[in-house]
Amino acid sequence: MQTLVYVFIIVNLALALFEDPAVVPLPIWATSTTEIICLSAFTVRMIHYAKIIPKDKFWKDPKNICIIVVITLSFIDLTIYGALKSTGYFAIRWSRVLRPLLLVNVTEGRQLRRAFRSIRNALPQIAYVFLLFMFSVLVFSLVALKLFGKRGLLTIDGSPYFTDYVDIVFDLYVLVTTANSPDVMMPAYNYSDSFTIFFILYIVINIYTFMSFFLAVVYSNYKKHLKEEVRQLVKARRFKMCRAFSLLQEARGEGGEPVVTQAKWNHLVKLIKPNISIAHRELLWRKFAFVQLADLLSIQVITVKSQPHPIHICFPSMYNSPVSRFIRYVVHHRMFVHVYDLIILVNAVFIGLDEENPVVSNAEWGFLVLYMLEIILKLYATEPRAFFARHHFWNWFDTIIIVSALFGTIINSALKHCYTGRQILDIVFILRVLRLIRLVDTIKRFRAIINTLIKIGPTILTFGQLIVVVYYIFAMVGMELFKGKVQFFEPNSTSPDQEYCGNPLLKGTTFAKLNYCKNNFNNVVSSFIVLLELTVVNQCGFTAVTHISARIFFIFFHIVVVIIIINIFVAFILEAFLVEYTVDKSDLQTSLEKKIEELELNVQQYVPFRPAIKSIEGLRLLYFPGSRTVDGLLQRMFETEIHPEDFEEEEPENINFSNPVFDSV
Amino acid sequence: MQTLVYVFIIVNLALALFEDPAVVPLPIWATSTTEIICLSAFTVRMIHYAKIIPKDKFWKDPKNICIIVVITLSFIDLTIYGALKSTGYFAIRWSRVLRPLLLVNVTEGRQLRRAFRSIRNALPQIAYVFLLFMFSVLVFSLVALKLFGKRGLLTIDGSPYFTDYVDIVFDLYVLVTTANSPDVMMPAYNYSDSFTIFFILYIVINIYTFMSFFLAVVYSNYKKHLKEEVRQLVKARRFKMCRAFSLLQEARGEGGEPVVTQAKWNHLVKLIKPNISIAHRELLWRKFAFVQLADLLSIQVITVKSQPHPIHICFPSMYNSPVSRFIRYVVHHRMFVHVYDLIILVNAVFIGLDEENPVVSNAEWGFLVLYMLEIILKLYATEPRAFFARHHFWNWFDTIIIVSALFGTIINSALKHCYTGRQILDIVFILRVLRLIRLVDTIKRFRAIINTLIKIGPTILTFGQLIVVVYYIFAMVGMELFKGKVQFFEPNSTSPDQEYCGNPLLKGTTFAKLNYCKNNFNNVVSSFIVLLELTVVNQCGFTAVTHISARIFFIFFHIVVVIIIINIFVAFILEAFLVEYTVDKSDLQTSLEKKIEELELNVQQYVPFRPAIKSIEGLRLLYFPGSRTVDGLLQRMFETEIHPEDFEEEEPENINFSNPVFDSV
Repeated sequence: MQTLVYVFIIVNLALALFEDPAVVPLPIWATSTTEIICLSAFTVRMIHYAKIIPKDKFWKDPKNICIIVVITLSFIDLTIYGALKSTGYFAIRWSRVLRPLLLVNVTEGRQLRRAFRSIRNALPQIAYVFLLFMFSVLVFSLVALKLFGKRGLLTIDGSPYFTDYVDIVFDLYVLVTTANSPDVMMPAYNYSDSFTIFFILYIVINIYTFMSFFLAVVYSNYKKHLKEEVRQLVKARRFKMCRAFSLLQEARGEGGEPVVTQAKWNHLVKLIKPNISIAHRELLWRKFAFVQLADLLSIQVITVKSQPHPIHICFPSMYNSPVSRFIRYVVHHRMFVHVYDLIILVNAVFIGLDEENPVVSNAEWGFLVLYMLEIILKLYATEPRAFFARHHFWNWFDTIIIVSALFGTIINSALKHCYTGRQILDIVFILRVLRLIRLVDTIKRFRAIINTLIKIGPTILTFGQLIVVVYYIFAMVGMELFKGKVQFFEPNSTSPDQEYCGNPLLKGTTFAKLNYCKNNFNNVVSSFIVLLELTVVNQCGFTAVTHISARIFFIFFHIVVVIIIINIFVAFILEAFLVEYTVDKSDLQTSLEKKIEELELNVQQYVPFRPAIKSIEGLRLLYFPGSRTVDGLLQRMFETEIHPEDFEEEEPENINFSNPVFDSV
Repeated sequence: MQTLVYVFIIVNLALALFEDPAVVPLPIWATSTTEIICLSAFTVRMIHYAKIIPKDKFWKDPKNICIIVVITLSFIDLTIYGALKSTGYFAIRWSRVLRPLLLVNVTEGRQLRRAFRSIRNALPQIAYVFLLFMFSVLVFSLVALKLFGKRGLLTIDGSPYFTDYVDIVFDLYVLVTTANSPDVMMPAYNYSDSFTIFFILYIVINIYTFMSFFLAVVYSNYKKHLKEEVRQLVKARRFKMCRAFSLLQEARGEGGEPVVTQAKWNHLVKLIKPNISIAHRELLWRKFAFVQLADLLSIQVITVKSQPHPIHICFPSMYNSPVSRFIRYVVHHRMFVHVYDLIILVNAVFIGLDEENPVVSNAEWGFLVLYMLEIILKLYATEPRAFFARHHFWNWFDTIIIVSALFGTIINSALKHCYTGRQILDIVFILRVLRLIRLVDTIKRFRAIINTLIKIGPTILTFGQLIVVVYYIFAMVGMELFKGKVQFFEPNSTSPDQEYCGNPLLKGTTFAKLNYCKNNFNNVVSSFIVLLELTVVNQCGFTAVTHISARIFFIFFHIVVVIIIINIFVAFILEAFLVEYTVDKSDLQTSLEKKIEELELNVQQYVPFRPAIKSIEGLRLLYFPGSRTVDGLLQRMFETEIHPEDFEEEEPENINFSNPVFDSV
């Protein structure tokens, strides 16, 4: 059902591809019908919710109200639009702006809502810094007007330089995005060296100092807010665990301390995590406090039974022959990895060479054989289920890349004589290059950085959703405002309008000269690309075509995306990186590890498979530092900073449950 | 003597203005003689040092060795250059690169050396992230070569697009600086929409993620290093204070605890801070631990005697008359400030208007009179010495701005008929606009931000020095490599070379078209400006003129300045801002404030003068949160994180001195 909701949301959002201005035009009845189906699905879901959830709770939740409002407005807009269009009037589909709100407000979008909440909390602080920043821009603009306005300077276009106050404010605002540097400075600089002092001051104050201030404000608010959320989470969990303990406890003898028996414990653990190994359960039983149970269970301790190799079972004599032993020894040897690193390096050189050369294209077959051999050898030396365990990222990566490249290359050479498909070749090339990434895994320091990247990956996806929501809203507004203002002509077209992107206002501008015509708001795809360009560096050719609304649009976009969202993204990466780099393991994990060592388990380290492997009683415990979920990462960020005394005042009667005595000890 | 050393260093650095390629050309003998004088001065200083400091200590200090090496190399270079030049050979003054090292290594440049040290400490970590980042750029470049190289695309200049691997690497590296966005993407985007996926991935991974990683690495290292330094500082101070206490202590009675008598305490405080008030000393005496003395004395507690107004002394009857009382009441009233804020706003509008209009230029006199009246009224209502106290930043600011503007306007109108001096007018205009800044002081939140800015001001100056050192080195190298490659022609020149900046290689390039000719390395001033432009956004027109060396120069500059120094600057602002915003007052200051309240002192708040004023026995104590020095700020950053137990193991016999008993209590 959840998947279905997402499908409907995606279909609803994707309608922008087919609605006017469209990438693939569809008739209005088709898009309208699809939208009505989607909206009906959401309505049904809402009614279903309203039936299940108690009434007062349902109406108190802002999410539900928001969804109902969006659905109602969409239906109203759809009706008005249909009526106006059928009578031939001009109409705007304004409710399309509201569509991404559905994505934010479905119950499953928890991470996204958290991100929005932290933005909302940071807003007042950002507003103050922003007002001061704007004040600074306005004062600088006034100085610029007074200094340069009367000097009769000309810009490169031949227009007067810095004579209109509003223009100056806009130009200096754009300078903050570094988009018009150094063009905005050149006329003054050409006139006199000393005028650069003005620009240097402006750059130091407004670009470096204020932009850092924005980051600082966003970062400090983000951190504060997150800490509070995690604190609430930990508190709630602790409270629940104490409640659970008081339910499970039994009095030991007469007047003895309350304890939890091992039988009950085993039963409980089996209920919660049915597939946990006995060794792992035993480990958790010994000495850990009951309240930590939820945290302990969330730590990934994977038990791998050292199963015999399938070939060993089928042909034991062959698998244990000296040659086979030697092969397995070689494969597990450190040099095997180094030899393959060298092969990858050589391969990199070959990829760089011209693939039309027969030697190079034949060498590719050689490399493919070598890589296949590596995988087969590794599969021979290692138990296949261990090799393809869920956490062996690089094994999966290798196998998928190599097998796909093999298929691609075969298909490509099969089709070579009848059809020159560049698409297949492109994919094959990319697969070949991706192989090189494995080199990173060889160097330990790089691995640490890559692991951090992989860990913060899911959260980057949350930000991706956030960006899509904001982009979608801006794209909808931008398309209504600017569609058709700039036309793109195919390179081989002979239209005279091609020179100035189909808009006489752009005649002779840098925008047209640099052939930026495809940067337009004529459909949703090109809108997204323009917005991306605006995010990277302000691309303000548009302001030449339309009037002041374009400027307001661009400034507003810059504030929302660059000043707020990008800074929150940077703040997140900053915090995640600091946590990953400085707090390598949480206290709890360290104590778990210490316990493993206390139990005198042998430490067995395999070179080709990176995680530390500790064996206990014929089983191997694979221990992973850090949990991979977003929540886990967020919690780890702050759990070291949350002190137990923070909770004392709330549950005075439960506080001595923190280390309950177990029966068997 | 210190000032003299700085003068010599500045003269030595300023020689670049006069040496070939020069802003103001001077003959070689003149510059050489000046340099010899400077170098001799440094040599004399070194000899003096060597005489005073014990030999082994002198030779162990890397600073001294560095200075000696620089002086020696400069002399050698000077000799070679003189010899070669006099015989007509080509010669390079390579030792000029070493000059800024003198600035770094003089003993007074402590802050600067600290900044360099934190850079050096962060380098290994940065190097790893940088290598991974470069690996990513190289892999992306390879993909780009394979995807776009064979498609026969053309850039806007008509040159082939993405066909040479080294060119691609450079283009994609420049894309990280956002300088060539979206130009680098346009040919591929014009060819097919789907190619933008490549650029989107590149931007997300290399611009946003890796650049945030750089910031994170620099920030975490900077913080760690600074914390360690402050820890050492606090430890050393604490140890010294304990030593001091054991020297000062006296046994109370027979077998009593060791104490410090109040007489001794008073004597000591008088010796250290002769101009401290009795009230302040009394305050410190009560209950504060001896070890905190140094910290306590560094807190700015300013005692202001409520002296009678001079006019009150001279004409008491007039000053106490109802009219005079009413004036003073009005001036101290909240509305008085608001009325003047309104006047400033009206003034802002007038500044924006055309000053040729007689109404506007006459209104200026009216505003000047109003502002002068404000200052006079305030001086009438407040004791002048209190008004111009050192900490009343805005009073000083107002008075200086208004008086200068008055003089400027008078001089300007006096000269108007015989001489149209735009310079004076410029200064007058800027002074007028600067007045508007006072508006910021009205809003409390803005004041907090501005105070943070003022507090981190001195450290920004340290970074300024750092930037000058790095810029100077790059400017020297750049001038030797690129001087004369790009020529600037005055706008009214008729030379045909003007079209392409005097270099045929630039014919038809965007660089020449956008009239960037003045961005060259032909003298030290324009070199600095080009480097500034490179810092803000990569400005790589140069790479068209020269060969690969220019590219290496620009990449190297980007790594050093943008990746390392700007990130350290951002890290500093981040940390300073977080401390200012979150830890408003240190524990020590809070306890001092609590003490003031315990003593039941009346709190008296004056509206026009912002700091909290607390009066004690006829005196007023002005209490300032936070110390203004760089060291103080740095120490406050981490003092809350340094726990007393960190020092326990070192001085076990001194640990119970932390709260010694005083005699009189």
